[in-house]
Amino acid sequence: MPDLDGTLTALADPARRAVIDLLQREPRCSSALADALELTRPAMSRHLRVLRKAGLVEEASLEDDARVRVYRLRREPFAGLREWLDDVEGFWTDQLASFKRHAEAKAKRPRA
Amino acid sequence: MPDLDGTLTALADPARRAVIDLLQREPRCSSALADALELTRPAMSRHLRVLRKAGLVEEASLEDDARVRVYRLRREPFAGLREWLDDVEGFWTDQLASFKRHAEAKAKRPRA
Repeated sequence: MPDLDGTLTALADPARRAVIDLLQREPRCSSALADALELTRPAMSRHLRVLRKAGLVEEASLEDDARVRVYRLRREPFAGLREWLDDVEGFWTDQLASFKRHAEAKAKRPRA
Repeated sequence: MPDLDGTLTALADPARRAVIDLLQREPRCSSALADALELTRPAMSRHLRVLRKAGLVEEASLEDDARVRVYRLRREPFAGLREWLDDVEGFWTDQLASFKRHAEAKAKRPRA
């Protein structure tokens, strides 16, 4: 069971979601992320620390230059969040199915 | 665009997620929720206020007794969160598809 509290708290910030949106396209280094979002480097470092602590991103080296450290997304926390969301939303799907069964049964019944 | 900050902050608490899990089965009144989660009524009132402010739950009257106020889930914020998650996870789906195309193209190539 992933730590949903940590995942949700880390994602409950527009700047951190913007980082996720950028990293979704390709891994980037901290300063490129700061420039893209017009944030100072210390501010970006703080956001990346929160995202890393929640396991949403990880540091890696570029394949063609091991000295360059980039950030990339980790799938697990997103999958954990989706699992929880599937459970909650199952409710509406079940409700719809039961409504459909009810409507079909009613349509089949001969009129008085 | 629903307020993802509010949705995520409201959901980043285990007690509030437990409320969502209970309401997913059926609408309940505040005191029934407090009893089920072994929380005091004022604590439950505070959690419900946060959930209501984020639009995740709404108050309604019971069909057979309008005096009884119950809470039920609202779908919109969950759908908004899922939409964002679909966007982020599209990344891995695209990556998998591109890997598959690459592997297939390689398999078709005649060996040297």
